[in-house]
Amino acid sequence: MTAPAPAFNREALENILARRFFVAPSFEIYGGTAGLYDFGPPGTALLNNFIDTWRKHFVLEEDMLEVDSTILTPYEVLKTSGHVDRFCDWMVKDTVTGDIYRADHLVENVLEARLEADVRARMSALELEAKAKADKAAAAAAAAASGQAAAPAKKTKQKVEVAATKLDAKVRTAYEEILAQIDNYGGDGLARLIREHDIRTPEGNPVTAPVEFNLMFDTSVGPTGDVKAFLRPETAQGQFVNFAKLLEYNNGRMPFASASIGRSFRNEISPRNGLLRVREFLMAEIEHYVDPEDKSHPGFASHADVVLNLLPAKTQLAGSTTISHMKMGDAVKQGIIDNETLGYFLARVHLFLVKVGVNPTLLRFRQHMSNEMAHYACDCWDAELRTSYGWIECVGCADRSAYDLTRHSERTNKKLVVRQALAEPRISEKWTIVVNKKKFGPAFKRAAKDVEAALMALDELAVVAIKDALAKSGAAMVATPDGAQHKLDATLVTVERVTIKEHVREYTPNVIEPSFGVGRILSSLLEHTFYSRPEDAARGVLSLPPCMAPIKALIVPLSNNTAFSPLIHDLRQQLRRRGLATRVDDSASSIGKRYARNDELGTPFALTVDFQSVKDNTVTLRERDSTKQIREPVATIINLVDQLVNGETTWDQVIKKYKVFTEQEA
Amino acid sequence: MTAPAPAFNREALENILARRFFVAPSFEIYGGTAGLYDFGPPGTALLNNFIDTWRKHFVLEEDMLEVDSTILTPYEVLKTSGHVDRFCDWMVKDTVTGDIYRADHLVENVLEARLEADVRARMSALELEAKAKADKAAAAAAAAASGQAAAPAKKTKQKVEVAATKLDAKVRTAYEEILAQIDNYGGDGLARLIREHDIRTPEGNPVTAPVEFNLMFDTSVGPTGDVKAFLRPETAQGQFVNFAKLLEYNNGRMPFASASIGRSFRNEISPRNGLLRVREFLMAEIEHYVDPEDKSHPGFASHADVVLNLLPAKTQLAGSTTISHMKMGDAVKQGIIDNETLGYFLARVHLFLVKVGVNPTLLRFRQHMSNEMAHYACDCWDAELRTSYGWIECVGCADRSAYDLTRHSERTNKKLVVRQALAEPRISEKWTIVVNKKKFGPAFKRAAKDVEAALMALDELAVVAIKDALAKSGAAMVATPDGAQHKLDATLVTVERVTIKEHVREYTPNVIEPSFGVGRILSSLLEHTFYSRPEDAARGVLSLPPCMAPIKALIVPLSNNTAFSPLIHDLRQQLRRRGLATRVDDSASSIGKRYARNDELGTPFALTVDFQSVKDNTVTLRERDSTKQIREPVATIINLVDQLVNGETTWDQVIKKYKVFTEQEA
Repeated sequence: MTAPAPAFNREALENILARRFFVAPSFEIYGGTAGLYDFGPPGTALLNNFIDTWRKHFVLEEDMLEVDSTILTPYEVLKTSGHVDRFCDWMVKDTVTGDIYRADHLVENVLEARLEADVRARMSALELEAKAKADKAAAAAAAAASGQAAAPAKKTKQKVEVAATKLDAKVRTAYEEILAQIDNYGGDGLARLIREHDIRTPEGNPVTAPVEFNLMFDTSVGPTGDVKAFLRPETAQGQFVNFAKLLEYNNGRMPFASASIGRSFRNEISPRNGLLRVREFLMAEIEHYVDPEDKSHPGFASHADVVLNLLPAKTQLAGSTTISHMKMGDAVKQGIIDNETLGYFLARVHLFLVKVGVNPTLLRFRQHMSNEMAHYACDCWDAELRTSYGWIECVGCADRSAYDLTRHSERTNKKLVVRQALAEPRISEKWTIVVNKKKFGPAFKRAAKDVEAALMALDELAVVAIKDALAKSGAAMVATPDGAQHKLDATLVTVERVTIKEHVREYTPNVIEPSFGVGRILSSLLEHTFYSRPEDAARGVLSLPPCMAPIKALIVPLSNNTAFSPLIHDLRQQLRRRGLATRVDDSASSIGKRYARNDELGTPFALTVDFQSVKDNTVTLRERDSTKQIREPVATIINLVDQLVNGETTWDQVIKKYKVFTEQEA
Repeated sequence: MTAPAPAFNREALENILARRFFVAPSFEIYGGTAGLYDFGPPGTALLNNFIDTWRKHFVLEEDMLEVDSTILTPYEVLKTSGHVDRFCDWMVKDTVTGDIYRADHLVENVLEARLEADVRARMSALELEAKAKADKAAAAAAAAASGQAAAPAKKTKQKVEVAATKLDAKVRTAYEEILAQIDNYGGDGLARLIREHDIRTPEGNPVTAPVEFNLMFDTSVGPTGDVKAFLRPETAQGQFVNFAKLLEYNNGRMPFASASIGRSFRNEISPRNGLLRVREFLMAEIEHYVDPEDKSHPGFASHADVVLNLLPAKTQLAGSTTISHMKMGDAVKQGIIDNETLGYFLARVHLFLVKVGVNPTLLRFRQHMSNEMAHYACDCWDAELRTSYGWIECVGCADRSAYDLTRHSERTNKKLVVRQALAEPRISEKWTIVVNKKKFGPAFKRAAKDVEAALMALDELAVVAIKDALAKSGAAMVATPDGAQHKLDATLVTVERVTIKEHVREYTPNVIEPSFGVGRILSSLLEHTFYSRPEDAARGVLSLPPCMAPIKALIVPLSNNTAFSPLIHDLRQQLRRRGLATRVDDSASSIGKRYARNDELGTPFALTVDFQSVKDNTVTLRERDSTKQIREPVATIINLVDQLVNGETTWDQVIKKYKVFTEQEA
């Protein structure tokens, strides 16, 4: 059931996705709103199948604690998490028209256009003609495949037009270097690029200096309008704030993971590239809580042999993008992946992505370089999928350390810690100040309580300093919070070596977070699974795995003769009882055409009902990619479809066991 | 598997829901935000099981077209649907403190408090003492059941304190009448009530006149901030705007339904009663599109015998709340339910609610009276569930007529209609203006085109008027859009009787909408399924149907002896492979205590592993409500659990077939 790997035709795929209502711009009859998309029936089924597979692969398999938290999030929570201050992009304004651009995108588009103009300028007239011809042919092929008149390609970027102009070799190199690290520029860096390289809008106008724009949608809760809130930018915070309850639900046992699947929102300055950069999207996030002193994982050994495509930071720093194919276990042992738990999750993510239809040769794990990692993260790998838009970040796997739990705990004064009973008490010695109560009170009078509290709050270094001062000069000073200095002597306090016995260890767990952008994964895997029949470029096929296909079985009666109705009804009932979605196509089109229509929907199996079926209760079963068929009794066919969809058998096995059927009635 | 029906103890249930993290106030460590709740692991599983069951019962069973649309909705869409102007509640402000109250709630609370004070005033000292004693005993029982110290009951309303004061009989009646129809007062009506009955805040302060408050959360999209949008208040509009695409996906066939499951938002002025009135909630909505001239339904006959608890408008108008137990088919035939399709959906909703655990004796369908129905609706029934808060509207079943599609079509100039090929062409005659092209052009010169267009746009009445004018005076006038008048005579135009043959009928479908408030249903059915063991009030049980239970099977080893580990691992694997969620409880508590803990989670089955299990590979299977057990080989038990969860067998059948097991090792 592996599809051939043809040249990918984006326009033909987009045409199918629109025409068959996988996805459409939201509120299209109102002109649409940039960055918002609706999923139609097959798109929604794909989404639901994704969620179902994800939940089985991660939540059910590992007893993760799934949480369903609200989208509305109070200001304070996101202030604490850092989103209010740091979840921003830089924007610039056209000084003439007032149009707004995302600064890095504008720089990127202008430099790319100049590089392209340079290529054109260097081409001979002959080469240019050949290129124009090739472009035209490609457009025509796309149009043929989409079954529609050739239409101009959709503009996915604000198009910058630059006349063919040769660039100096040095300038070329500079541009290429800028583009390679465009994600790493801050406001000042972007301002400098705009100034130095005379970046202008597509209209040719200058732009303002970049200003920060927070990407969260804001609103207010309640009738007074003074309770400020945001739509969550990720589901993670809704899990972190529930950490104490989750740990309790898990009977205090570590490690464990929570998980959430839900909508998140980013008010993108310039949404683009279809489902890849949108304003409302589905996320699936796991927060795995682990002892910072022990990041081993019980599933490590059983997943150590999973081979991953790795692009480590070191390779990137050396200016290369060569992928290392490595066993996960080796990568952890060699210190390329920071720890067992992170390695385990990379392997699980790899297995999951392949399960839902991602082409493993178009999947890589790219490690963040230190300058692109969030300041609190200690290691981060992105699962990237290769698409016609380049490598797209689809799953982020970060070790967020203890950052979020610590911040929320500090802000709310609520403990977000694990208390671990120690098998052996932990014994340590410590210099400690001992107060001579009898003299201390009379000596400091009303300040006594504050002075004692100030002494107790000192760390061990300060305590040793007091010990030394007392030994040296017989006196030492201590400050109370009001700023007053108080003099101590050996009659008031002594400093002693005290043995401390701890029976419980208290720690803030680290969090390892695999975070899935569902729309991006679906969008990429639709590219990976789309192909055209070699014998007919116009017949597009979505080679979705059966578990992901919106409809599992197409039922095709030879004609709309009512003699077929009882059997069709029976087939639907039986498949439905097993939770398998079906679709009947009893239109007047030829059987071949009806198969083709459902190949576009990714329907893996088709059951054909003809007059022989009515006589002997057999139907044919056709598989989408091989287009081969078998003919068996209804009961056998229903069982096979069930097993094929649930991964209990494969079409190759079926074809080996049953006779391939070749004759079909007209 | 039916639970006994004991006196319901709300506090004990709420304690379990909080303690076992079914549900908790969102961002509780930050003090929470009124009207926002998070679902913890068992609550999320319950929610997911609800969605799964709903999707199978409605979407899969009837091939509904599921749509996943965005939460962010542009201003224009909700302006057109009427939400911008009419989706409001009335609020009043305390003139001293500035506190804001929902006007109808305030009136309700004050009048209820006065009625209660009247009752107290009429009681003898003896009766008062008895009441105080009974209240205290109830609180203690609740505390015992919850396993916690007695805590004051949560305030679910703004409490109004009124000293015991007798009311005049007439005043009492007036108050009761107001409360019975409190939902029907507009702003003026509420202002009058506040004035006439001296309604004050709990602090005793007067309030301002009621002002309208729109319940939608607003935000803006994009960097300029000038694209106004709302968080959707329902999923319906996201379906309506996609109607044309959905009809095309359905190959133009009617009737059909679309469906959506998703979050919706209402900025309630005063959220209250736990999950019953919240600001962010899950909705599941069906929009069934039907020919207004033919509201028959293919499923009507097979559901005609479903007996419904009906409370028709007529009964309510007669001042009664007596429920009629009627077969759905009879109710439609007698005109109580408006049409077959609506009747069919009421039956389907009834069957669904019972499937997920609603007690059918606590379910009624209440018909809207004409004054509470949306102005466009032609019939509306609410499925109401009886809870400790009274009857709660959980599913609205409205015939929305052609209202929404017509409005969106008018606003966008996009056709949202069905084109029905007529078997027999529809033939009609019509007076039509025929232009004499030869003379018409020269006569009107540059205006000719506009004049002809104006004539063609006339309706038949206007055409007949022109005919009459021509016959009478030989001339007639017609106006062009620019306001100019043009003179016609019999040489320029004639009016003729023309036969029209229509092969296609074009109509705007009516929409029948069952709309489910998921949180309200879950909240109600938790009340319906909660009970305490008669032998032990402190042991609460959630008698959830197996398909809804968060965890299907508890696995209980006799002790944490490692001899049990392989079998436990094997049981989990096998159950997981069938998609059945399990939980292992290998804590040191007694087996009885471990059962009890999982009764609270609604876990229907428990598998106990003991030393005999290790020897002969048998385990016991215990059912939650009967607490009876059987002991069989592992393979048999696994199959039984699967069948029990999927509704293929019942515990009664199992108990009849297998020997009840009574001895358990200590």
